[in-house]
Amino acid sequence: MRRRRTGGPGRVVLVGGGPGAADLITLRGRRALAEADVVVTDRLGPRALLAELEPGVEIVDVGKAPGRHPVPQHEINRILVERALAGQHVVRLKGGDPFVFGRGGEEVAACLDAGVAVEVVPGISSAISVPQAAGIPVTHRGTAASMLLVNGHDDPTQATLAALADDTTTTVVLMGVERLGGFAEAAVAAGAPHDRPVAIVESGTTSSQRTTRATLGTVAAAAAAAGVQAPAVIVVGEVAAAGLLTRLTDPARSRTG
Amino acid sequence: MRRRRTGGPGRVVLVGGGPGAADLITLRGRRALAEADVVVTDRLGPRALLAELEPGVEIVDVGKAPGRHPVPQHEINRILVERALAGQHVVRLKGGDPFVFGRGGEEVAACLDAGVAVEVVPGISSAISVPQAAGIPVTHRGTAASMLLVNGHDDPTQATLAALADDTTTTVVLMGVERLGGFAEAAVAAGAPHDRPVAIVESGTTSSQRTTRATLGTVAAAAAAAGVQAPAVIVVGEVAAAGLLTRLTDPARSRTG
Ligand SMILES: C[S@@+](CC[C@H](N)C(=O)[O-])C[C@H]1O[C@@H](n2cnc3c(N)ncnc32)[C@H](O)[C@@H]1O
Ligand SMILES: C[S@@+](CC[C@H](N)C(=O)[O-])C[C@H]1O[C@@H](n2cnc3c(N)ncnc32)[C@H](O)[C@@H]1O
Repeated sequence: MRRRRTGGPGRVVLVGGGPGAADLITLRGRRALAEADVVVTDRLGPRALLAELEPGVEIVDVGKAPGRHPVPQHEINRILVERALAGQHVVRLKGGDPFVFGRGGEEVAACLDAGVAVEVVPGISSAISVPQAAGIPVTHRGTAASMLLVNGHDDPTQATLAALADDTTTTVVLMGVERLGGFAEAAVAAGAPHDRPVAIVESGTTSSQRTTRATLGTVAAAAAAAGVQAPAVIVVGEVAAAGLLTRLTDPARSRTG
Repeated sequence: MRRRRTGGPGRVVLVGGGPGAADLITLRGRRALAEADVVVTDRLGPRALLAELEPGVEIVDVGKAPGRHPVPQHEINRILVERALAGQHVVRLKGGDPFVFGRGGEEVAACLDAGVAVEVVPGISSAISVPQAAGIPVTHRGTAASMLLVNGHDDPTQATLAALADDTTTTVVLMGVERLGGFAEAAVAAGAPHDRPVAIVESGTTSSQRTTRATLGTVAAAAAAAGVQAPAVIVVGEVAAAGLLTRLTDPARSRTG
């Protein structure tokens, strides 16, 4: 399958690997992987795809494994640029989509600044697909007309608080497990109803997917009781209520808090 | 390739076909297509995939072609359910992702209500991939920490106006060409700076992709001058400024208004 390039300049392709299941990569993404000399990977994303690479393809793991020093972003950028300048076809495999909290923009900018040809292949973002895998449509006629996507590291802005208080907006939080309690408190303090539904979907699209359902008022306790861990997508809004399309999912994997 | 089923109950698989380019479907989505007895399609999405279907696979087009009466949603639901109850393997091919303004939730609910087995395969949503194809990252460290996704049919809510006025939020509007002028006016009236960058990306990821750049203050005139037409994704926010990663795209296809 692999089309070995014969000399020529190197290049970098940022590939969105999707949320975890190996068959949720795009055809274009898999083709880029099949043509790679070196694949630079993270901890998240579909690691099973690495097993399909031909022997001789180098894998550079820059993922932040717990208890290990993460490779700093400028170092990742340097690896991408150096390899491409050396003539290699580099695939930067990222979880989800490269431009959704993935620092993909910085990697693209580093390549452009160094005169390295760079391309981006979109991926299935966890922001939409992980709720979906738990039977939660981020938009739904009559229930949710818009979606706000935020990261849980930053303090909620006024705009985020406005979305959380809005009946027709779904708020999706990535990287939000650690600060979940404070986030829910800030939402209620800003006027969001304490009984607004919340769903936490851990390890979506993988065999260990698990959904915990609660409300803004109960979610901190529910997450603690369930031992919720990253990676997880937190969905706040009416679409997160049990019963909408939840028969889509395996009920044995769902719990209510 | 096609695995013909031998009898057994029918089923419905909603497949996200991605924004337009045929190789932006997922492996899982293509496999579902290869196993279909009947494919129910829209006007948007990767129509090239239909050409790859084996002879004998029926195509039912429920797309809203201009000047034709659209097939009402309840009628689409009925087609899906009836075919599945008759034992067929039905693929409902949708543009982008089925749960992003795609009425996929309603189709799932109709199947569940009728006792029909139903599955959803995520797709690459235009909301993220179309800006990306124009060199616009919807999130970008230091520039955009969150993204609001809205549809242009509804009047902007308070939460939408708050996002538009927020420096660190990217607002992405689908189905927004028709009411663009009013939308931009409402944003400025609510406190968004008139020089906030706006990009309009038409027919993203296809050979006729085109980007028009402007600001909230100039976008109505720029869109009219360029003759902007649906389908288009409108991006409001600092990430939409020319110069961020725009060298990613073909400059010949970009214009500034
Ligand atoms: C650094 S962000 C990268 C997001 C990625 N670019 C995307 O589009 O999905 C990592 C966060 O994504 C979410 N995430 C990614 N994959 C996930 C999965 N399979 N299940 C649940 N959450 C996931 C979690 O919130 C995690 O903390
Ligand atoms: C009914 S919505 C469906 C969205 C779809 N489910 C998705 O996730 O992309 C249709 C709107 O999506 C946007 N859209 C879809 N494909 C597009 C493309 N290739 N280029 C630009 N806009 C697109 C346009 O705003 C269009 O009016």
